[in-house]
Amino acid sequence: MPLFFIALSGYDSSREVCMLAEFSIIPVGVGSSVGDQLAEVLKIVDASGLSYKVNPMGTVVEGEWEEIMDLIKKCHLSAMKSGERVLTTITIDDRKGKPDRLEEKVKSIERRLGTSLKK
Amino acid sequence: MPLFFIALSGYDSSREVCMLAEFSIIPVGVGSSVGDQLAEVLKIVDASGLSYKVNPMGTVVEGEWEEIMDLIKKCHLSAMKSGERVLTTITIDDRKGKPDRLEEKVKSIERRLGTSLKK
Amino acid sequence: MPLFFIALSGYDSSREVCMLAEFSIIPVGVGSSVGDQLAEVLKIVDASGLSYKVNPMGTVVEGEWEEIMDLIKKCHLSAMKSGERVLTTITIDDRKGKPDRLEEKVKSIERRLGTSLKK
Amino acid sequence: MPLFFIALSGYDSSREVCMLAEFSIIPVGVGSSVGDQLAEVLKIVDASGLSYKVNPMGTVVEGEWEEIMDLIKKCHLSAMKSGERVLTTITIDDRKGKPDRLEEKVKSIERRLGTSLKK
Repeated sequence: MPLFFIALSGYDSSREVCMLAEFSIIPVGVGSSVGDQLAEVLKIVDASGLSYKVNPMGTVVEGEWEEIMDLIKKCHLSAMKSGERVLTTITIDDRKGKPDRLEEKVKSIERRLGTSLKK
Repeated sequence: MPLFFIALSGYDSSREVCMLAEFSIIPVGVGSSVGDQLAEVLKIVDASGLSYKVNPMGTVVEGEWEEIMDLIKKCHLSAMKSGERVLTTITIDDRKGKPDRLEEKVKSIERRLGTSLKK
Repeated sequence: MPLFFIALSGYDSSREVCMLAEFSIIPVGVGSSVGDQLAEVLKIVDASGLSYKVNPMGTVVEGEWEEIMDLIKKCHLSAMKSGERVLTTITIDDRKGKPDRLEEKVKSIERRLGTSLKK
Repeated sequence: MPLFFIALSGYDSSREVCMLAEFSIIPVGVGSSVGDQLAEVLKIVDASGLSYKVNPMGTVVEGEWEEIMDLIKKCHLSAMKSGERVLTTITIDDRKGKPDRLEEKVKSIERRLGTSLKK
């Protein structure tokens, strides 16, 4: 991404890798089992090139605002294709000057505890 | 917004007014009272021209994906200016063919109940 | 609620009215329209005696931890009766020494802005 | 847990292991770094005996309503001890007749995709 765009977007380069977002796509009205829709969504996430971690309740991605939101929009539209209603929840954790948080957030807790947590 | 853009974005015009999003901006680390930051955020929401409703836990806006996300990004960046860390939560409810949901969602429940709810 | 219970629960009486919680019940797999299920839920909320405000994306209630969670559990079980899968989201905002926040949170922003917001 | 309790709680035994909940504790007003508070919280989770998985944005636990909510309340109160304000978010995914979902939810997506996802 060119520097002039970064400047226009209000972000400076030192912050770029500091944003984490967890999101969850909930197709409503296509049945209790929404695994097919979510498989499509995870295929999009895996192909996006963004760092991510899947958990049983959502997917955490790391990146800049625009690239994260572009990805989530693609996932949301993918689920809307096969249904009439989709709920998408997003939680953004944006912190200046803290890189590599997808790995570091849990590790910093484990260092404090002196033990390993279940992941 | 020109029609060719709407086509490219994957939305057709009949769906445009059907998206609701609630969002909440949480400045972390600037003290227990974050009213000053939230006043700035609500000033941005009120000036945006989008239909909205404020509640004690967040703000619900109605619009298209891009205009909603542009607004939330502005609000998020406003809170980041005065702090080091901001959590922003977003819940999107996207439903085909249901206009004016900012007013209609609660009213449709009230009609079913035959009574008025506290708002 | 007797005082000895309050003591055991780890809350002192000065904090009791300070908890706000927004919750949302999402029946998955019973169709795009979930208004009948939500009407049942709002009937339970309205009958609970807790202060509340409904918005297009959820319901905000004010109370103590136990009474809020009892209410949300009743609402969740009501939705499970007519479906196989329910997602329930809860956001708790707990702040020491701030009473009447169901009304005061938005008003304090409006005082800062010197204007009235849409609600 | 004795059977008579299960009956009173409104759950039958076939559903008990089917509830997943992700929760996140956000201490507001104690600084941008809340790692000490979260280490205390994760110590409580790890000692609870409930199955769990930690991710960079929250913790997913598996259990019944009461045991999950008891755990989250303990975590919330732990964070309130060292601060004036705590936001706690909870997302419950309750589905009849689907055991072992802490492991199975992601695996079922991977089987559909025929590939392994990053976790």
